[in-house]
Amino acid sequence: MIIVMRKDTTEEQVEQVAERLKNVGLGVHLSVGEFRTIIGAIGDEKLVREIGLEALPFVEKILPITQPFKLVSREFQEEDSVFNIGNCTIGGKQVVLMAGPCAVESEEQVLEAALGVKAAGARILRGGAFKPRTSPYSFQGLEEKGLQILARVREQTGMPIVTEVMDQHSVSLVAEYADIMQVGARNMQNFYLLRELGKLNKPVLLKRGLSATIEEWLMAAEYIMAGGNRQVILCERGIRTFETMTRNTLDLSAVPVVKHLSHLPVIVDPSHGTGNWRWVPSMCCAAVAAGADGLMVEVHPQPEQALCDGAQSLTVAKFTTLCTQVEKVANVFGKSIRG
Amino acid sequence: MIIVMRKDTTEEQVEQVAERLKNVGLGVHLSVGEFRTIIGAIGDEKLVREIGLEALPFVEKILPITQPFKLVSREFQEEDSVFNIGNCTIGGKQVVLMAGPCAVESEEQVLEAALGVKAAGARILRGGAFKPRTSPYSFQGLEEKGLQILARVREQTGMPIVTEVMDQHSVSLVAEYADIMQVGARNMQNFYLLRELGKLNKPVLLKRGLSATIEEWLMAAEYIMAGGNRQVILCERGIRTFETMTRNTLDLSAVPVVKHLSHLPVIVDPSHGTGNWRWVPSMCCAAVAAGADGLMVEVHPQPEQALCDGAQSLTVAKFTTLCTQVEKVANVFGKSIRG
Amino acid sequence: MIIVMRKDTTEEQVEQVAERLKNVGLGVHLSVGEFRTIIGAIGDEKLVREIGLEALPFVEKILPITQPFKLVSREFQEEDSVFNIGNCTIGGKQVVLMAGPCAVESEEQVLEAALGVKAAGARILRGGAFKPRTSPYSFQGLEEKGLQILARVREQTGMPIVTEVMDQHSVSLVAEYADIMQVGARNMQNFYLLRELGKLNKPVLLKRGLSATIEEWLMAAEYIMAGGNRQVILCERGIRTFETMTRNTLDLSAVPVVKHLSHLPVIVDPSHGTGNWRWVPSMCCAAVAAGADGLMVEVHPQPEQALCDGAQSLTVAKFTTLCTQVEKVANVFGKSIRG
Amino acid sequence: MIIVMRKDTTEEQVEQVAERLKNVGLGVHLSVGEFRTIIGAIGDEKLVREIGLEALPFVEKILPITQPFKLVSREFQEEDSVFNIGNCTIGGKQVVLMAGPCAVESEEQVLEAALGVKAAGARILRGGAFKPRTSPYSFQGLEEKGLQILARVREQTGMPIVTEVMDQHSVSLVAEYADIMQVGARNMQNFYLLRELGKLNKPVLLKRGLSATIEEWLMAAEYIMAGGNRQVILCERGIRTFETMTRNTLDLSAVPVVKHLSHLPVIVDPSHGTGNWRWVPSMCCAAVAAGADGLMVEVHPQPEQALCDGAQSLTVAKFTTLCTQVEKVANVFGKSIRG
Repeated sequence: MIIVMRKDTTEEQVEQVAERLKNVGLGVHLSVGEFRTIIGAIGDEKLVREIGLEALPFVEKILPITQPFKLVSREFQEEDSVFNIGNCTIGGKQVVLMAGPCAVESEEQVLEAALGVKAAGARILRGGAFKPRTSPYSFQGLEEKGLQILARVREQTGMPIVTEVMDQHSVSLVAEYADIMQVGARNMQNFYLLRELGKLNKPVLLKRGLSATIEEWLMAAEYIMAGGNRQVILCERGIRTFETMTRNTLDLSAVPVVKHLSHLPVIVDPSHGTGNWRWVPSMCCAAVAAGADGLMVEVHPQPEQALCDGAQSLTVAKFTTLCTQVEKVANVFGKSIRG
Repeated sequence: MIIVMRKDTTEEQVEQVAERLKNVGLGVHLSVGEFRTIIGAIGDEKLVREIGLEALPFVEKILPITQPFKLVSREFQEEDSVFNIGNCTIGGKQVVLMAGPCAVESEEQVLEAALGVKAAGARILRGGAFKPRTSPYSFQGLEEKGLQILARVREQTGMPIVTEVMDQHSVSLVAEYADIMQVGARNMQNFYLLRELGKLNKPVLLKRGLSATIEEWLMAAEYIMAGGNRQVILCERGIRTFETMTRNTLDLSAVPVVKHLSHLPVIVDPSHGTGNWRWVPSMCCAAVAAGADGLMVEVHPQPEQALCDGAQSLTVAKFTTLCTQVEKVANVFGKSIRG
Repeated sequence: MIIVMRKDTTEEQVEQVAERLKNVGLGVHLSVGEFRTIIGAIGDEKLVREIGLEALPFVEKILPITQPFKLVSREFQEEDSVFNIGNCTIGGKQVVLMAGPCAVESEEQVLEAALGVKAAGARILRGGAFKPRTSPYSFQGLEEKGLQILARVREQTGMPIVTEVMDQHSVSLVAEYADIMQVGARNMQNFYLLRELGKLNKPVLLKRGLSATIEEWLMAAEYIMAGGNRQVILCERGIRTFETMTRNTLDLSAVPVVKHLSHLPVIVDPSHGTGNWRWVPSMCCAAVAAGADGLMVEVHPQPEQALCDGAQSLTVAKFTTLCTQVEKVANVFGKSIRG
Repeated sequence: MIIVMRKDTTEEQVEQVAERLKNVGLGVHLSVGEFRTIIGAIGDEKLVREIGLEALPFVEKILPITQPFKLVSREFQEEDSVFNIGNCTIGGKQVVLMAGPCAVESEEQVLEAALGVKAAGARILRGGAFKPRTSPYSFQGLEEKGLQILARVREQTGMPIVTEVMDQHSVSLVAEYADIMQVGARNMQNFYLLRELGKLNKPVLLKRGLSATIEEWLMAAEYIMAGGNRQVILCERGIRTFETMTRNTLDLSAVPVVKHLSHLPVIVDPSHGTGNWRWVPSMCCAAVAAGADGLMVEVHPQPEQALCDGAQSLTVAKFTTLCTQVEKVANVFGKSIRG
């Protein structure tokens, strides 16, 4: 951590900062320039963050040198994390496709979607039983009944299930049914939920918050890993910008950036990322070319009848065409949607 | 709701949309132009939102006419909502000052802050017992012990307490101690929490999410009101933008916009809004001039010793000066910080 | 255009709006609901935009039905625009690579870069003679001397040149040398410059502004086309968001969106889009997979000696590896970097 | 400037960076930690920016210590800059009101507006003769004829004129008529224009770009000052964010931030900042309370007949009411709209 003092600080003020750094066990490295003094704090940056130096009027600013995350970082673990889920492998040479309806509506609907997407190449079934909705008057999901439907469809198709968990007290319930626990964008900083998931031994798919920086996203993953659960899959799903033609702006550059900073796998959700089925196929191909370890795509047997997010859902036919394209792009990078 | 069809849609396609609107009980109003047909859906817009018309390839876009919120709207209730808390009045001629430390650290700290801010003009004591922190390694709050400290300080000072509740299962615990239940920015769309707060008969202070539109913010308030709790206080606390010199960008125009759309009171939190004690006094004055019904300000007896957010905390002395200025600005608008 | 009246508007007020619409030659279509009246204006939306109805207190809002652009739209021209430049084809089956240094520094530097990128697969040489720089103290470009260097390198390599023009009075000078006239992001709404370029018979590469919506970007292209120049190439180069790990956020979803709305070709500049050479190769592949008609990449023989933007420049060796990858991705979509 | 090396850099790599710093005349200060080496570059940071160290693969990041601006900074000039224009004083105890129509349409219109706003308390007349418009089909201004109208109205009213100049070649023409040269948001980084204005001896009102950081805005002012013209007035006019209820998000915290960093006066334009006449009065009061040295407000005799931006224009009556409020707020801070 570098502490930049304001111009014309006195020696006593510099000493005061140095003293406080030493008190918490940090080394101090002074660099006295012509106009200002810069103080290097040597040791754990976390300690500097906690002692409130910014509140001192003669401190101009504080510059962090290291990233605040540890367990998620590539410095902590150099090789890629690879997780096995059912007969899929996330983080290696497979591009894992997760597909299915936004919301679980009925067993027929889920089964039809599951059989369709499986035949096309998807390996994991997605479907929401608990739905976070902007309006209190919108359909809120079938809850446990929805989880049971997903489980029955898993039995019939052999597809592992990824589904959202919305609060820490539902973690054990959802964990009974789900193969991957999904944390939605709005819950990325629900720290109680993250801590509860840290106690599980089950993969967690952590969506990036609508306005979360990459650093905050990785810190959310750090919460889960700090609790002991090492199986975190990151999911880019679009960030909020001024552009209104797309529901969100899918930040594909997050894929190489995260892979540089962290050993965790990253997948991409172009359905929420764009909010419009028209742009989903292009962005699926682009995500794989950017290095994504997988895709999450909304597919509905009759999108125009969907109770939720029909506008961004693909039909099974369109998803099938998309899979063919995605497989070819994956092959360019020595990967495949089949394990 | 206006449904805009793509150019060259056939009559059958128009009929198909009209049919689906009629099926859910909506009136249909066709406007056939030279190039395209526009369909007006007459009745409850919510119904249109739910039937997934955007998924139809011949639908270009859907334009809402009305706002999606009801109970929070000025169309529903024309006169301002005014709530009495202790001997304060929020939403009327009083500019209510809520002040205190970011986090409860000890009884001495809270008491010293409380006595200081009360003498300066604050009427409500703020202090966090449960702290949402970006890093799992940061101080997470004293939890129930913190609530007890707040309660003891209330006894000694007579100041009502506003404190954060972070999940639905703590609502009853926090409600035992708090006079106002605070929902943090990261929880603005924690719908379970909102629903639980809807069952209370106690004011809720709902902070705007970091990237929440005003519409989403009002929809979050709608969740609480739809549950039966009419006492919602909105709190603008800065939104996320590209600017990095301030922690967030305080959106003061949200104050008149919300007051136009809704009857609910709005307060402003310039401490989080700017993230730097230097800009807090100016933005407090500006917020009151913009029409805010109150302010929430972080004050710490020794900001440079604070366990949390010291950089944005004022000393009691600086807060006292600020109160004098704020009172003069309030007077311009026929208001006062004293009830 | 749909004019939504405020609740409880009188018949006279509705009549007043209708009258003004009729006065400018528009058709009027009333839809009187239980709570509010909606007025459809039939005819040229431009006329509605110009008569200032939003200033009337009883007008709630005005909703456009059609896009404000014409000549750039797919409704105006259904098939893709394809432009021939030298022996390249932009907008068809070729993925055109434009590469070279950010700034022209010397003939040796440009020639070395040109020979390198040409051997790797680039078809067009980029290089800046006029440089827009945030600081008045930074290197501002070699100006005409730089253009002459580019022309000499074109002679030696046969590569057409794309270079930036910064104001309308330099258009004729730059046009003497350049094969493609580049408009930088900061000039996207320099309307005088756009109008001057509209008089040329030479391709214009129009970069998206840092905070330009897709609609504004297409309107800027409309300025050029309205002047008579039909050869506009759009270039996505990242937009400004809250994320700080990348210089900008490259909005690849803009590629399919623009291709849906317009017949113009779209290329992508991942060098400015990310600001870091590390992320450029991934984003090049992603851009082509998203459907881009070409790429613009900064390549410098010695990036660490560059007078401008060294941090985002690739070496020739890294660019050569990238071309091999990009070609494979292009092939998946039936395209090639070779014509 | 602090250069942070990647983990496990070799001594030779550190030496290579140190060598390059010394070559341009900078001092070098090594801090070798357990995991990484940090290099402090002592001297002019500009030199570090120019030598492209970020392109070296073993350089992790470069952290600036000082601000890149000089002449505009408070470190350069401690006391506030105060400019006299006509009988107004900008930057001192006067809150200068600039008001008038968005676009000059006719002498009658401008004169009526001028007489109205002058009577209400405005001291400077605003009006656009050159209009930057998003659409090529919109009204583009009366150009020189508009300037002549402004000059005639100045004669009749005694009010100095502020009007926009859109390119460097019109600077001398506009300077013949204008008392203050306005640079629009879209031209904030039109560096040719800034340089030309730097040669004048006349105040320049520099609007903040739609997505300009405060640092970039001050760097634009630095361009003008570096040319020799010290009379720069900054104007906050809203930045682009995700919020759609207001045309832009007026960033009032920019006022105290700029006043901390710079000695230049700052005014606020709530008309463009919000885009809706309804929010203008509140935001005018808020801007003055935040410390603004003046306001720029659009006033039109018949807003609903305006050829440009009618939606955000106030009537003379509304502006008169606003002035009374603004004066009271100014008085709280020992200021007045009358000189």
